[in-house]
Amino acid sequence: MSTSAAFQRARRPEQKQQREDAILGAARELALEHGVRNVSLNDIAARIGIHKSALLRYFETREQIFLYLTAAAWLDWGRALHAGLDGVSPGSAGSAGSAGSAGSAGSAGLVADVVARSFTDRPLLCDLIPHTALNLERNVSAEAVRRYKLTSLGVISDAAGVVHRVLPDLTGDECREFVSAMASLAGALWQIANPPPALADLYRSDPELAHACVDLTPRLRRTAAILLAGLIPSRTPD
Amino acid sequence: MSTSAAFQRARRPEQKQQREDAILGAARELALEHGVRNVSLNDIAARIGIHKSALLRYFETREQIFLYLTAAAWLDWGRALHAGLDGVSPGSAGSAGSAGSAGSAGSAGLVADVVARSFTDRPLLCDLIPHTALNLERNVSAEAVRRYKLTSLGVISDAAGVVHRVLPDLTGDECREFVSAMASLAGALWQIANPPPALADLYRSDPELAHACVDLTPRLRRTAAILLAGLIPSRTPD
Repeated sequence: MSTSAAFQRARRPEQKQQREDAILGAARELALEHGVRNVSLNDIAARIGIHKSALLRYFETREQIFLYLTAAAWLDWGRALHAGLDGVSPGSAGSAGSAGSAGSAGSAGLVADVVARSFTDRPLLCDLIPHTALNLERNVSAEAVRRYKLTSLGVISDAAGVVHRVLPDLTGDECREFVSAMASLAGALWQIANPPPALADLYRSDPELAHACVDLTPRLRRTAAILLAGLIPSRTPD
Repeated sequence: MSTSAAFQRARRPEQKQQREDAILGAARELALEHGVRNVSLNDIAARIGIHKSALLRYFETREQIFLYLTAAAWLDWGRALHAGLDGVSPGSAGSAGSAGSAGSAGSAGLVADVVARSFTDRPLLCDLIPHTALNLERNVSAEAVRRYKLTSLGVISDAAGVVHRVLPDLTGDECREFVSAMASLAGALWQIANPPPALADLYRSDPELAHACVDLTPRLRRTAAILLAGLIPSRTPD
């Protein structure tokens, strides 16, 4: 069956959906194998055995494909946050510090743990986060970026609500501030924690560069605990 | 004078330096005008009137040019931090919250102010930060990335020392953690605060998207205050 015959068949709605799913699946696999930065439209087309021009009938640009994957990754992340926190008893945001000691993790410590792991368990989401503002949102139509933004902001709002239920002494805005800061940091630190081979070699061989290594999960967990512990004491009196 | 004649002359050490400075100056101007992401080697070569192949005699890649600019931007940032904080009296990290009220800014509030402005006054540095781990460190030689890392880590260490002098109740490691987190956040939030035109239009026209706007200086200042206020209460008892 030739590519153009396959494309004809794919004009039926369910086949169009199958083709879109195949494109997204190939992009996801390639991004996990090689990093988002290294995946081109040609790579995606080659993985599913179609020509790049056929692929462009389903998605505007390479960036639109990755923006779809980012939206899906945010939705999956939001579900993980619910799964990790919906059963946690409410407590105080000031209880994060004691979470390191055995058995005495406060509610804030649990929030810090679950939020840190929600990112580190999702390497594709972490890789995609910095690409979003830097590249993905800039090479798609206004309608595509609008749909993406409504999805990602909806997930962040919902996640802030999940945190707020567990830590009711924070305000809703503070919970959103916490979740947003953690997302930005997860994206930035993931890139640093996953250096290219030449840089990883340098980190191993040069003691002067040892500082530059980032152990992602403990670093994110620690930053989450700092932010949660700081939100109330840093309130301005107005 | 032809390009090749100019190149011949540029082999004298002082002329080579002049040529390198011209390349870096053109890259900096173009990046400030159009954003780092939009500046190619061809753009830089065209701005100074040489051919791309001549430019590649001075720098390995586009990424090496921007890595040089990033190192220079970090050194400039470090000087600004000294200028803003060397005269500040030591105080407590818990004093950031009261900085909003007139005349009563504590030492931590001053640190939060100075650190936030040190980034927002430097749009090129903010733009370069996320590009560094994502792109720049990946497309240069091991020696170039090593030199860059030693410079940037040296500046971060020195900056941590500046903060530590003002807030001696923090540990040196906590000050480094604070400075590193602020750098990652400044880079991530700057991209969000400077959206492409289509996205800026959406933010203005769609109330559902109003949450997505970031006002960079107050957001960074607030996050700095949260981090400083949270470092001590979130210490784990070990």
